[in-house]
Amino acid sequence: MFPDDPALPLAEETAPTTRCRIIATATEHFREIGYQKTTVADIARALKMSPANVYRFFDSKKAINEAVLERLIGEVEALVAGIADRPGLSATARLVAAIEALHDDSLRRLEEFPRVHEMIEAAMGESWEVCRHHVARITAVFERIVSDGVACGEFFTNDPALAAGCLHAGIARYTHPLLVSQPTLPPVPPLPAMIAFLLRGLAPESGSKAEPGMVR
Amino acid sequence: MFPDDPALPLAEETAPTTRCRIIATATEHFREIGYQKTTVADIARALKMSPANVYRFFDSKKAINEAVLERLIGEVEALVAGIADRPGLSATARLVAAIEALHDDSLRRLEEFPRVHEMIEAAMGESWEVCRHHVARITAVFERIVSDGVACGEFFTNDPALAAGCLHAGIARYTHPLLVSQPTLPPVPPLPAMIAFLLRGLAPESGSKAEPGMVR
Repeated sequence: MFPDDPALPLAEETAPTTRCRIIATATEHFREIGYQKTTVADIARALKMSPANVYRFFDSKKAINEAVLERLIGEVEALVAGIADRPGLSATARLVAAIEALHDDSLRRLEEFPRVHEMIEAAMGESWEVCRHHVARITAVFERIVSDGVACGEFFTNDPALAAGCLHAGIARYTHPLLVSQPTLPPVPPLPAMIAFLLRGLAPESGSKAEPGMVR
Repeated sequence: MFPDDPALPLAEETAPTTRCRIIATATEHFREIGYQKTTVADIARALKMSPANVYRFFDSKKAINEAVLERLIGEVEALVAGIADRPGLSATARLVAAIEALHDDSLRRLEEFPRVHEMIEAAMGESWEVCRHHVARITAVFERIVSDGVACGEFFTNDPALAAGCLHAGIARYTHPLLVSQPTLPPVPPLPAMIAFLLRGLAPESGSKAEPGMVR
């Protein structure tokens, strides 16, 4: 079904291009007009194609939104994964950089894309697999860094997956597009103070490494 | 201006009642029809009064929303403040109970009031003083409990206000009405695990009480 399947007939060869053009035009419309007010007919008209042709590639506006979000999300996921793999940095430094990257990315998206909350709300309501996968992938990167930190004695936790989940949940106020996106929101502690507070939850305590089975 | 000002003429004596009736009717409409679709004229019609009479009490729909939210918010603030003052409980137990109360209250509101997010979004957009004051009051309660915990050696921090701000920001994913309100949201660690993780950021370490000036 995916258009770059080599088994598809020749007429489908331009499909990936068409798909990309639909995503680019939809992104533009969602940015300028907003997700709610954009129709599939608007996107088709801008591309000088029939709505039926758009529907050959995407079942629904929801599916187009998912593709647009996955492209945006994919960029920050790649960025954060790159930070986790950065050589020569401590686990703490990588965790700090990854959290700052998520925060900065959310702020930048909002500046470029003031109506992004409409897409996010739509996705939270109807495309929750996209949201779940994104959260799972970022949490997995955090877990990788936490496990590295535990391996070298920089962090202590018996459950790096749970600690990564707590870290990720703990920064929602700084990274979730619905919460970071309100310039008039109540003040929160500066991000570095928040990260320092959260990382104290991972600090090895004297004797803790000698008791790896201890319940904390 | 406030209707229970004793200097107001006699004809205004029923004003607090009228004000309360407007708030009650608006709450009902916002719950059943939603904030966006409710007009001041709808509220006036349900109360068999003129829109002009509603405007004698509230300048705008925004002002009505603020009064409705302040009533809802006031209830949870009183609950959390009561927990902070509960005698015979450790600071940890009171902090856990306060966070659980905020979480439970958000979930309960959403069940009773599935369109509450419309009111919250409107408030985040235009009534940010209401949001700021609410966050400040809850953070102040957290700070009071943290300070109690520091005083009796249960917690360690050089800055209870900052620690309280971090705790409050750290639970947004579990208490913020826009994030708790999505039943399909990506999974987060169970609240008790999250609280335990956050409280590790306040744990006194061996020797820490002997060095109160130490920068952490």
